[in-house]
Amino acid sequence: MDKLNMNKHISGQFNAELDHVRNQIMAMGGLVEQQLIDALSLLSRPDAELVSKVISTDSKVNSFEVAIDEECTRIIAKRQPAASDLRIVMAIIKTIADLERIGDAAESIARMVERNMDKPLKASLSSLEHLGQHTAKMLHDVLDGFARMDVEMAWSVHQEDKKVDKEYERLIRELMTYMMEDPRSIPQVLDALNAARAIERVGDRCQNIAEYIIYFVRGKDIRHLAGDEVEKLL
Amino acid sequence: MDKLNMNKHISGQFNAELDHVRNQIMAMGGLVEQQLIDALSLLSRPDAELVSKVISTDSKVNSFEVAIDEECTRIIAKRQPAASDLRIVMAIIKTIADLERIGDAAESIARMVERNMDKPLKASLSSLEHLGQHTAKMLHDVLDGFARMDVEMAWSVHQEDKKVDKEYERLIRELMTYMMEDPRSIPQVLDALNAARAIERVGDRCQNIAEYIIYFVRGKDIRHLAGDEVEKLL
Repeated sequence: MDKLNMNKHISGQFNAELDHVRNQIMAMGGLVEQQLIDALSLLSRPDAELVSKVISTDSKVNSFEVAIDEECTRIIAKRQPAASDLRIVMAIIKTIADLERIGDAAESIARMVERNMDKPLKASLSSLEHLGQHTAKMLHDVLDGFARMDVEMAWSVHQEDKKVDKEYERLIRELMTYMMEDPRSIPQVLDALNAARAIERVGDRCQNIAEYIIYFVRGKDIRHLAGDEVEKLL
Repeated sequence: MDKLNMNKHISGQFNAELDHVRNQIMAMGGLVEQQLIDALSLLSRPDAELVSKVISTDSKVNSFEVAIDEECTRIIAKRQPAASDLRIVMAIIKTIADLERIGDAAESIARMVERNMDKPLKASLSSLEHLGQHTAKMLHDVLDGFARMDVEMAWSVHQEDKKVDKEYERLIRELMTYMMEDPRSIPQVLDALNAARAIERVGDRCQNIAEYIIYFVRGKDIRHLAGDEVEKLL
């Protein structure tokens, strides 16, 4: 208790700045999560206005990324954090890069819907939306895990990505069958395939964020470790 | 001159550590460049041994990433760099993440070749290889630009990515035509399409690295600026 209070006292200014940057990243995360949910809802209900909203959100997400990145670099230069204080700042810097790319994925789904507005995609749309919901849930959980620096939650999101990958493989085979049955559908189905890939990568991004959480809490970079090595570690 | 010498004296230890980490990143860059060149050569000359080499290089690249990342974090904690010293360390941390993903792209090209070893892909292979050479040149140049922290070279690589994107679009249309003409070729052509996308993203990664070089030298984050805004800045 005393030690905690002393640390708090010494690094009060650092903590205040860190709190601010943490609030910023949660705001950025919330924005990206909504952007992804909106993009996914477009798959079953194309809507020009919502397409514009999803696309225009991108520049807000980008601004968040640049501002948080600058603030983190400034904090490092000014506060010279070490150990876990430095790890949290590094984890934040890496997390915003992945969040920004999840925003790009949402944007590319919206653009795909826009291109097919007159001739709605039928093929595998519900599978695509299902895959999307799966990754949106991962994003929600990993942001939750980030807010609480919850290693168990992070690891469970990390494990979830295997299921997303399998679901993605099934969807690709489904889309391939559509193309082979009706070659005229190929351009449209390729669009759906691109959206599927963008969604699958959202899962990868969430997995990355989960790794940064574990890196911060446990001080260990698990990026290229096998699953059972990580299990032992946690 | 005096000022330079004094700075050198004060931060001699920092410079020595920075030199080491710079050598490491150039070694990592060289490894990834060779991995990409090997993977691309597989497109016209499938070879099981070279496939294994490209795939096994991945774990070396991953080790480089983790080691350099750790060393950079240690340097920040110990040397507490500010201003341009801090910017170079941040630029290195971001660059290795992109290099690692270029390595992943090389690996996925090798795996694609492996899957099609018995039934060599004919469709658009030369276009695919040409696109690959284009991005391999970008990688070579951006590593050169990184070694010399050359802003002009970085910006020229950055601009090159537009051409890669156009070449990629043409290739996708070509592959689409193959599929429509011969639906039985679809699974194989989708494989080629995945390789094309992996290659196209190598260009994006090089563009990212170019941005980190400019960030280090000019102290300005250009990631989400329009081309003419950057021109003014440089």
